[in-house]
Amino acid sequence: MHDIALIGAGRIGKIHAANIAADPRLRLAYVVDPVAGVAEALAGRHGARVAEMAEVLADPAVRGVVVASSTDTHCAYSLAAAEAGKAVFCEKPLDQDLSHARETGARLDAVGARMLLAFNRRFDANFAELQARIAGGALGALETLHIISHDPAPPPIDYVRVSGGIFKDMVIHDFDMARWLLAEPVTEVFASSAVLIDPAIGAAGDADTAKTILRTASGRMCVISSSRRSGYGYDQRIEAFCSGGMIRAQNQLESTVETWGEGGAAADRFQNFFLDRYAEAYRREMAHFADVIDGAPPLIDHHDGIAALALAEAAAESARTNMVVRPE
Amino acid sequence: MHDIALIGAGRIGKIHAANIAADPRLRLAYVVDPVAGVAEALAGRHGARVAEMAEVLADPAVRGVVVASSTDTHCAYSLAAAEAGKAVFCEKPLDQDLSHARETGARLDAVGARMLLAFNRRFDANFAELQARIAGGALGALETLHIISHDPAPPPIDYVRVSGGIFKDMVIHDFDMARWLLAEPVTEVFASSAVLIDPAIGAAGDADTAKTILRTASGRMCVISSSRRSGYGYDQRIEAFCSGGMIRAQNQLESTVETWGEGGAAADRFQNFFLDRYAEAYRREMAHFADVIDGAPPLIDHHDGIAALALAEAAAESARTNMVVRPE
Amino acid sequence: MHDIALIGAGRIGKIHAANIAADPRLRLAYVVDPVAGVAEALAGRHGARVAEMAEVLADPAVRGVVVASSTDTHCAYSLAAAEAGKAVFCEKPLDQDLSHARETGARLDAVGARMLLAFNRRFDANFAELQARIAGGALGALETLHIISHDPAPPPIDYVRVSGGIFKDMVIHDFDMARWLLAEPVTEVFASSAVLIDPAIGAAGDADTAKTILRTASGRMCVISSSRRSGYGYDQRIEAFCSGGMIRAQNQLESTVETWGEGGAAADRFQNFFLDRYAEAYRREMAHFADVIDGAPPLIDHHDGIAALALAEAAAESARTNMVVRPE
Amino acid sequence: MHDIALIGAGRIGKIHAANIAADPRLRLAYVVDPVAGVAEALAGRHGARVAEMAEVLADPAVRGVVVASSTDTHCAYSLAAAEAGKAVFCEKPLDQDLSHARETGARLDAVGARMLLAFNRRFDANFAELQARIAGGALGALETLHIISHDPAPPPIDYVRVSGGIFKDMVIHDFDMARWLLAEPVTEVFASSAVLIDPAIGAAGDADTAKTILRTASGRMCVISSSRRSGYGYDQRIEAFCSGGMIRAQNQLESTVETWGEGGAAADRFQNFFLDRYAEAYRREMAHFADVIDGAPPLIDHHDGIAALALAEAAAESARTNMVVRPE
Repeated sequence: MHDIALIGAGRIGKIHAANIAADPRLRLAYVVDPVAGVAEALAGRHGARVAEMAEVLADPAVRGVVVASSTDTHCAYSLAAAEAGKAVFCEKPLDQDLSHARETGARLDAVGARMLLAFNRRFDANFAELQARIAGGALGALETLHIISHDPAPPPIDYVRVSGGIFKDMVIHDFDMARWLLAEPVTEVFASSAVLIDPAIGAAGDADTAKTILRTASGRMCVISSSRRSGYGYDQRIEAFCSGGMIRAQNQLESTVETWGEGGAAADRFQNFFLDRYAEAYRREMAHFADVIDGAPPLIDHHDGIAALALAEAAAESARTNMVVRPE
Repeated sequence: MHDIALIGAGRIGKIHAANIAADPRLRLAYVVDPVAGVAEALAGRHGARVAEMAEVLADPAVRGVVVASSTDTHCAYSLAAAEAGKAVFCEKPLDQDLSHARETGARLDAVGARMLLAFNRRFDANFAELQARIAGGALGALETLHIISHDPAPPPIDYVRVSGGIFKDMVIHDFDMARWLLAEPVTEVFASSAVLIDPAIGAAGDADTAKTILRTASGRMCVISSSRRSGYGYDQRIEAFCSGGMIRAQNQLESTVETWGEGGAAADRFQNFFLDRYAEAYRREMAHFADVIDGAPPLIDHHDGIAALALAEAAAESARTNMVVRPE
Repeated sequence: MHDIALIGAGRIGKIHAANIAADPRLRLAYVVDPVAGVAEALAGRHGARVAEMAEVLADPAVRGVVVASSTDTHCAYSLAAAEAGKAVFCEKPLDQDLSHARETGARLDAVGARMLLAFNRRFDANFAELQARIAGGALGALETLHIISHDPAPPPIDYVRVSGGIFKDMVIHDFDMARWLLAEPVTEVFASSAVLIDPAIGAAGDADTAKTILRTASGRMCVISSSRRSGYGYDQRIEAFCSGGMIRAQNQLESTVETWGEGGAAADRFQNFFLDRYAEAYRREMAHFADVIDGAPPLIDHHDGIAALALAEAAAESARTNMVVRPE
Repeated sequence: MHDIALIGAGRIGKIHAANIAADPRLRLAYVVDPVAGVAEALAGRHGARVAEMAEVLADPAVRGVVVASSTDTHCAYSLAAAEAGKAVFCEKPLDQDLSHARETGARLDAVGARMLLAFNRRFDANFAELQARIAGGALGALETLHIISHDPAPPPIDYVRVSGGIFKDMVIHDFDMARWLLAEPVTEVFASSAVLIDPAIGAAGDADTAKTILRTASGRMCVISSSRRSGYGYDQRIEAFCSGGMIRAQNQLESTVETWGEGGAAADRFQNFFLDRYAEAYRREMAHFADVIDGAPPLIDHHDGIAALALAEAAAESARTNMVVRPE
């Protein structure tokens, strides 16, 4: 049983705390959060202690640190934990600023950080199975990819204003997925974005709808469809067109119940909330962190986070200039 | 090009006339119908002549006779045509009365009749593919079978009164399908019927809902679910449970269009009318009749019609007595 | 937090122990099992103590007892726990012998037992949603029901010999489901069974395949299809035919990944093992036990268990006699 | 009954001839084809006469001319027929050269041509239903569109060389579909193409794979995915993302038969050949031509053909320059 410290006791921190508690290899030892009441409530529920960051890092029993605090603190806390010799589980994204992320990345490398960057979709059973079949060549060589990623409804406008924009905030998940599945560096990005859902999003300087084409040196292409509002739930589908056929991951439904009435056959609703849709992925992600503490190489680390951020910047620039952009 | 005479110019006769006209091997030469105006209209549309039965049978150019008149005339016309040496296409059923059907069958055999008994579902592309896969052992040996056969809505009560009852009128299609797929004689029948849809059907001495279990000597079983009203269209499905898995035929939809809204994903309506659902089957059935005229053995003949009628009688008796019945 | 004692530390006991540990309202206090090593291992993992039954019943802190021991001890342990004033969670079935189950039921009633009889399928999200829609009249009045319940593969022949037969061992789940969904007493049972999968099952005096028709006083009918081996995974589907359409629950797949190749589109495998298929149902079942301890009426109790057992006996008798049987 | 002349007795000409013969409002009067034997065989089968173009145009009984000759003759024959006062049914495309098509279009307008340009997909029941639901606002306003259009296998390389390139030859169908569904002028085109399937196609100066983004003035976007080879049949799907949900048209299968085996549930193959897939569309298209002769405005005419060709040129230029192109 490895002792774990959790930094950040908000919505996502609570989920990680429960998954730590449920994992037979992990024990939640500390909760760190500037809001004292919140930290105490969460620590109390799981038999952990409230502490300051310094105390946590000084405790040699702590083997891993889970960074689930606000985005602007991810780099600093991850670095501090890595420098103290702890394995790090850092919520996505590493940072909103590409050059700061790169600096941090270099310092993490310098201390030999064992860093799991938590892009949750890589741990979803459906996408993991899809990736395994593509990589295994089940239907030959991958040629092109379609990623549909539409949220049920836009976030509050106050969130939009500080989100970093649709590409860095939302499409970044899909950039990571595209990189994982394409298995080749992306050399060109073209993005077209629009405000079709809510003019307030446009007034905040952001878009709510986008189509992006990524291209690799060998000519593989990936289309990403992004929308802040679907009208029918969380739409998260991927189609991989290969030389011998197509492999795809479909949406998850709330149940397998169907109604056959006069208008046709109707399936149940799509899962509508990302915490429901990815509950199992969060469990598997934490289990992988236990593996990493035990010595396994992380499935995904800060280099992936930096590369996805670079694609997000390229896409944002392409949407602004209406030109193809080569990511740095 | 073979000359064909059509007996009966009603709804189903018109469909057969159009399919004869469209088949490059067949030509509609005569239409026979007691209602003169109806016969003339249909003959005129397809360049055929109106005639009496005697004239038709005397014409040596007529190679085939299509019997699409009222059920009580099927035996007499089929026999007359067969005795005149014509190939016979007879609409289902051969007769409502089992002993009369058997007598006719013996006489048809005596004259060496070439007789296609038109159970349209055998010519449906879906059920034909299902049968081919079962018979080909695609998933091993057949063990049990489920046939769902629910009509969109009950027929008029006046029709119900003369229909011969749900088993002879409606389930007889499924008895034929069961015989074809089971590929073994049925030795036991148990049926349970009820009036759940319209009390008027019960008042007419009939039932509107039934579940029937057929059993063969080797223990293969077939469940048939029958309902005069589905609420969602024409429900015609078959599931075949084999030693290595399941093969099934699903319903046909009006289009492949789906709507994904808040309540889930909805497919289009099921095809709702048997003449739409089986339009292609009627075409294939007539093409098979051209094969029969050319010398092919009929896929289904009067012996099958008699056997299905025997199962219908056994099921009706079982429903009445609440006992297992062995068909004669 | 309620203290819980677990009786039986076998396969299903371990699942219940984990679910007790994960439920914020419950705490695993005791493990009782005649095999000392097994009890200690399980108790150790969850911070519980190994104890004898007497000690457990004497501890006033114990609010609930989970009976997960061998079937022949279910009645005795449930009764002892109920007499000690504990809420009881008893694994299905209550007993294999109908008269013994009835005696026990009467004694449980006499002491005012709060008894949750654990038919896991009632807690499956799919079947619970199905039941809610039928009961809510989403598509009008229920008329007939089809339950498909095919296991992936037969159990070991040694288990078959002591199982009580296919109806009491396997179909009993479907009898309970039928009772829940029909919402009317079953008045007639007809069952037809066969040995189509493994002659050794026949030599052990049992069948491996069955079709059962249940009928209520109002004429509602339910067909149950049972097979010890599907060839394609755990096939657990229900179709409810109502006056306004059909509601059904489909199978669960291992993932939403599909492959589209030359032969068509292929979905992923069905979940193949009941502990995977019903993992979430077991969690929800234990959460419901916490509700029962807090005062909620159990969704299902020993009366339901006795009624399902009576249907199983009736079906076995019907299959033996080839006659309709009225359950006592 | 309107007399029709058919120009061109090749593969597609034969299909139109059969549909003319089957339509109760049309009669095939003439077949025109430079290859005498071919013209005679087709005319003979349908009771038509072989003639020269001049004779056909001089016959006042001829109400409509179907132009199914080689692409380079479409403009000339259509114009000649229109000038002779005949209704014109012209196979797609109008021409491969945009300026020539525009000239012809102006001359067709000058003589008040009644011209049906035969983009067959507009007459497909699935796409027509999709268009009706989008236009009817079934799920609110259209925002973005995904068109998947992958052929089963590349055409012969000799055909590729004279095809005009993937955008004019293949994607032009999708440009027409996009225009129909978007219901707004396309103002920007970005296309990215690659040679991923067969280097010989690249050596011929063409691509075999492409992704195109169309954009309208209001910000509606359409992604078109094009591939010369799918590996799994004819993949023709459209997804329309609207403000209230998604409407989509799925592929057509060869039958509704499914196989459930160890690997999961498999649907039947997709229809693999465009003449099978669109057989019904060709029938409906000819029925619409009968409507046009009777006075109905054509659903699609040469202006649509010219606009689709302009998009194809813009896409080809975009793929060549890697820049956004505004179609003229």
